[in-house]
Amino acid sequence: MAGSPSRAAGRRLQLPLLCLFLQGATAVLFAVFVRYNHKTDAALWHRGNHSNADNEFYFRYPSFQDVHAMVFVGFGFLMVFLQRYGFSSVGFTFLLAAFALQWSTLVQGFLHSFHSGHIHVGVESMINADFCVGAVLISSGALLGKTGPAQLLLMALLEVVLFGINEFVLLHLLGVRVWGGMEWGVGGGQGQPLSQEHGGGGGVLPLHLTAPPQVRDAGGSMTIHTFGAYFGLVLSRVLYRPQLEKSKHRQGSVYHSDLFAMIGTIFLWIFWPSFNSALTALGTGQHQTALNTYYSLAASTLSTFALSALVGEDGRLDMVHIQNAALAGGVVVGTSSEMMLTPFGALAAGFLAGTVSTLGLERVFPLIAEGQRSATSQAMYQLFGLFVTLMFASVGGGLGAGLLLKLPFLDSPLDSQCYEDQVHWQVPGEHEDEAQRPLRVEEADTQA
Amino acid sequence: MAGSPSRAAGRRLQLPLLCLFLQGATAVLFAVFVRYNHKTDAALWHRGNHSNADNEFYFRYPSFQDVHAMVFVGFGFLMVFLQRYGFSSVGFTFLLAAFALQWSTLVQGFLHSFHSGHIHVGVESMINADFCVGAVLISSGALLGKTGPAQLLLMALLEVVLFGINEFVLLHLLGVRVWGGMEWGVGGGQGQPLSQEHGGGGGVLPLHLTAPPQVRDAGGSMTIHTFGAYFGLVLSRVLYRPQLEKSKHRQGSVYHSDLFAMIGTIFLWIFWPSFNSALTALGTGQHQTALNTYYSLAASTLSTFALSALVGEDGRLDMVHIQNAALAGGVVVGTSSEMMLTPFGALAAGFLAGTVSTLGLERVFPLIAEGQRSATSQAMYQLFGLFVTLMFASVGGGLGAGLLLKLPFLDSPLDSQCYEDQVHWQVPGEHEDEAQRPLRVEEADTQA
Amino acid sequence: MAGSPSRAAGRRLQLPLLCLFLQGATAVLFAVFVRYNHKTDAALWHRGNHSNADNEFYFRYPSFQDVHAMVFVGFGFLMVFLQRYGFSSVGFTFLLAAFALQWSTLVQGFLHSFHSGHIHVGVESMINADFCVGAVLISSGALLGKTGPAQLLLMALLEVVLFGINEFVLLHLLGVRVWGGMEWGVGGGQGQPLSQEHGGGGGVLPLHLTAPPQVRDAGGSMTIHTFGAYFGLVLSRVLYRPQLEKSKHRQGSVYHSDLFAMIGTIFLWIFWPSFNSALTALGTGQHQTALNTYYSLAASTLSTFALSALVGEDGRLDMVHIQNAALAGGVVVGTSSEMMLTPFGALAAGFLAGTVSTLGLERVFPLIAEGQRSATSQAMYQLFGLFVTLMFASVGGGLGAGLLLKLPFLDSPLDSQCYEDQVHWQVPGEHEDEAQRPLRVEEADTQA
Repeated sequence: MAGSPSRAAGRRLQLPLLCLFLQGATAVLFAVFVRYNHKTDAALWHRGNHSNADNEFYFRYPSFQDVHAMVFVGFGFLMVFLQRYGFSSVGFTFLLAAFALQWSTLVQGFLHSFHSGHIHVGVESMINADFCVGAVLISSGALLGKTGPAQLLLMALLEVVLFGINEFVLLHLLGVRVWGGMEWGVGGGQGQPLSQEHGGGGGVLPLHLTAPPQVRDAGGSMTIHTFGAYFGLVLSRVLYRPQLEKSKHRQGSVYHSDLFAMIGTIFLWIFWPSFNSALTALGTGQHQTALNTYYSLAASTLSTFALSALVGEDGRLDMVHIQNAALAGGVVVGTSSEMMLTPFGALAAGFLAGTVSTLGLERVFPLIAEGQRSATSQAMYQLFGLFVTLMFASVGGGLGAGLLLKLPFLDSPLDSQCYEDQVHWQVPGEHEDEAQRPLRVEEADTQA
Repeated sequence: MAGSPSRAAGRRLQLPLLCLFLQGATAVLFAVFVRYNHKTDAALWHRGNHSNADNEFYFRYPSFQDVHAMVFVGFGFLMVFLQRYGFSSVGFTFLLAAFALQWSTLVQGFLHSFHSGHIHVGVESMINADFCVGAVLISSGALLGKTGPAQLLLMALLEVVLFGINEFVLLHLLGVRVWGGMEWGVGGGQGQPLSQEHGGGGGVLPLHLTAPPQVRDAGGSMTIHTFGAYFGLVLSRVLYRPQLEKSKHRQGSVYHSDLFAMIGTIFLWIFWPSFNSALTALGTGQHQTALNTYYSLAASTLSTFALSALVGEDGRLDMVHIQNAALAGGVVVGTSSEMMLTPFGALAAGFLAGTVSTLGLERVFPLIAEGQRSATSQAMYQLFGLFVTLMFASVGGGLGAGLLLKLPFLDSPLDSQCYEDQVHWQVPGEHEDEAQRPLRVEEADTQA
Repeated sequence: MAGSPSRAAGRRLQLPLLCLFLQGATAVLFAVFVRYNHKTDAALWHRGNHSNADNEFYFRYPSFQDVHAMVFVGFGFLMVFLQRYGFSSVGFTFLLAAFALQWSTLVQGFLHSFHSGHIHVGVESMINADFCVGAVLISSGALLGKTGPAQLLLMALLEVVLFGINEFVLLHLLGVRVWGGMEWGVGGGQGQPLSQEHGGGGGVLPLHLTAPPQVRDAGGSMTIHTFGAYFGLVLSRVLYRPQLEKSKHRQGSVYHSDLFAMIGTIFLWIFWPSFNSALTALGTGQHQTALNTYYSLAASTLSTFALSALVGEDGRLDMVHIQNAALAGGVVVGTSSEMMLTPFGALAAGFLAGTVSTLGLERVFPLIAEGQRSATSQAMYQLFGLFVTLMFASVGGGLGAGLLLKLPFLDSPLDSQCYEDQVHWQVPGEHEDEAQRPLRVEEADTQA
């Protein structure tokens, strides 16, 4: 059946129809529900007698662009290490992210900034959406090569909803302050100027923006990285393929593909300070978070190199460790870096994260060290929050998404064709003399 | 003649002399005409009693750096898909851009910010110059591989002038407001502080920057993308080579070269919100434009994947579609995204742009979908503006630049040597064992 | 001896132990000495009655992220041109930078912002640390391929100290104002708000930040680029290997490795305006510096292409020239671009820098053109400062670091194994059929 003409026809139609349906439905929901918030709509803004320079845009947008680069370049190229799956790694990342950012704008909007029948969007919506995209891409890292693009889109459809609900439960029901920025999102939708929103009786000077009084950014890493990692891992387990060794020769990297993956690694590394600080409280909050992340990443890099050389065969470094674990320092401080009162604390946390993740991780994403971090921080509410997150991620990833992706009519690559771009893309040869003829015709034939 | 010693000598001298002449002439014009504007010159600035924080630099510079990355990394690597033309694609892009940004500073300065005998420059000059560079690089995309660097420089020399005149005609003679930012450029040159320039009787608080009252950014996409695309296409037609199939085997991509091109694609995609908002009105104007571009790009990505899989052989995606058409969403909203009153409008425009450009485009640049956009928007003045733009681009590109580049003494690659770095660069082998010997000596010989 | 088991054991332990020791010592020093400055610590900041928007973070952080990208992506990928040393080039850059940024935070802190028994850190500490990392990476460029990672870490350990002392001597003893930004660092540590620090009796409006009165940024390029380049060159001379031709076949590039190096080049080029302006005085100072660097880079690119084609065999361009010399324009204006009163001056300086560096440089880094710049500027104090810098760099690099790195027990690659990733990394094959078997086993064996 798998190789039959109807399968080919199914493949031809499945992805286009799903893309068109999801985009169409999203557009209709945007038309009905999504409106600019008061910082984005000129009429609302000037009614509040604000100046243009007093727009949150100028305090958040540079961070947003860093996060955007990190998500698309960083996650996009991190998975290009797969020798024959570079087009798919970058391309499907791109497709998933493009859908998930729209969908999470809607889901997060309904849950966090729904007022007077509308979702109100602005620069913080873009950052929140990109954060959710980050979780989806982390999950997809555990499935890449073994799933088709339609399956990945369905995963994103479900995961974005669970991500939003998990965040909502942590924020509103458990009283955990997830992000400083979520508060802006909530408050911002009510049409109040920034200066009044957080400054109490302030607002005399247009730029008198004071910090939210008691933000505890305890969960950024938890909601994004832990959720994404466990969702992906559980789902990957449910979709387990006993015959996958048929594709084993394509699971490794080649020299140049690892260099491309290093582009992803470096971009994740350099922009992590912006990722962690993008939605924290303005002023000293952002300042401190960026600084802590910077130090934590540096320390995790040193401990990763140390451990990689120590455990490596013949004392040699392993690119997989560097790619994954050097980033653990960014995850471990999460947005909770606001809680760390000293730069030393950031160094120590980063050092531990690099150590643990080098010793404990396979090549998925560096983000599971998170589990250990929570254990270290010892706070009960955080453990409970972690439990909730893991429940949502496991049950959602395992039962929900697993059942969804196993629907028999869904196109999924054969065991012998996993990790192969050619299943999904028109692929040129690796060398110029091959470029004009189809690559490995026999394989292409067997799958038709 | 083509293989004669005099030809080799001509090649040796043509590019150096042209570079030195263009740079020398530009430097002399800078010495005579270019001065810092009041936001850049400390004496002028403090005479106006402004504080340092009240400097447009802080509201525009982060966007400028994004645009700069987009132009140099994005356009630079987008064309690296050519298997044997990577050095030239990045290198000539680099050379063209370095010249065009200086030259357009002069041309745009004369046309838009010439006061008291001088051109006044500041951060908005850099953004405007990079925009013009964008148009030049789009045009060069239609010629790459078939033209030498000296020819490309002459193309830029002419195109920058026509670009400036076209913009001037649209702005001043037809009354089309091209960019919000152009107004800053015009007004800023008059030495007035920002606060008075747009705030009417304002200026009491140094940061009370209000929006220009009636900006209609109808043409950013028109002047940059449509102009650049048609200029290049018409010029490419005029320079038509009937024997080009001699180089056909080099026109395709190889696996790794397409991955490099994806770097270009992703950088164009992620920074497009900054490109479109870099010169729009401060405050809600920038906020809204960035948001609309973000949504439009997402929608165009989904429709591109849908259509690419639908029309692709065997349902397979085509990297060319993804590289080109996913960007159509950025072009279609242009800076006119300020006119779109809803996020839904941005989604719908992006969706259409992705669809149309996937169905209709060859691998040049994604930017010709623009023609269709204008048709959709139905406004008469915009059609007329488009007509003017196309006239300037076609006549300028066809007659002017065509005649110029066909000058018989200009060095141009032989038909059999198009798309080959070795004509212009010292090139190492692809593998380490080739690295120490000259690559494909026979070809290098035949061209001497 | 070199191939004995004890050597293998030594390699296995040397790097891990050195990493763990350096990170441990750094962490202890952080715990004892490093504290947030008043702009980063919420309690201190609000005690000063400042608003959150009046935080230097918003004026410096976007530039910091650009500098960060430039240092890690730019320097990281610039050296990937080596055909078999890509993992090491990116990886060791990454390791060195991660250590040097922590260590220079301490060294620069002790020398420049040590008050009341503590070092006070904030956004300007990150920029200063990244600047020092730049110098270390420039030096490492002269040693890459011929030294192991432990040797490079020891080099960084020494160089960061000498870098800090050299800067201190220039700044405090010779009266040379090194960077505008250093003043912020010094003053900022005293706990005064920005508005009072430089504005005299100001401070009424929270954002009334005025410029330091008499900044002469004469030395940014001198302390960073000249110091780094000479330190590396002298050290490379001291470590001279007469038998290095054994590794000669790996010193060249291959086609794709040069394309990766172009990623580095372009990122250095595009973000150089931020590098030069990141720590200059707020307002017109930053504005002018960014603009001058932009023009200077453009001019140096044209002169580089001109000279490269002129001196190249057969008139062909040399990628090495482009990679190195196009950047000379950024170095030559350094932060001294604040002294240049005209955009023409920037163009002329860039033009000369591109010319000189194309004619005079080997493939190290483009940064030695600096020596010539100082000669041009003719100011006696600058010559004296250069002399001091060269003394520190040469004596420190030659005697100090040379002796240190020649310690007999330090692991250093054999002459026949220089420029080879496999000595330090687990390396996959270049093609998929090699990916599952160890690459060139015979070589791996001989080094065991």
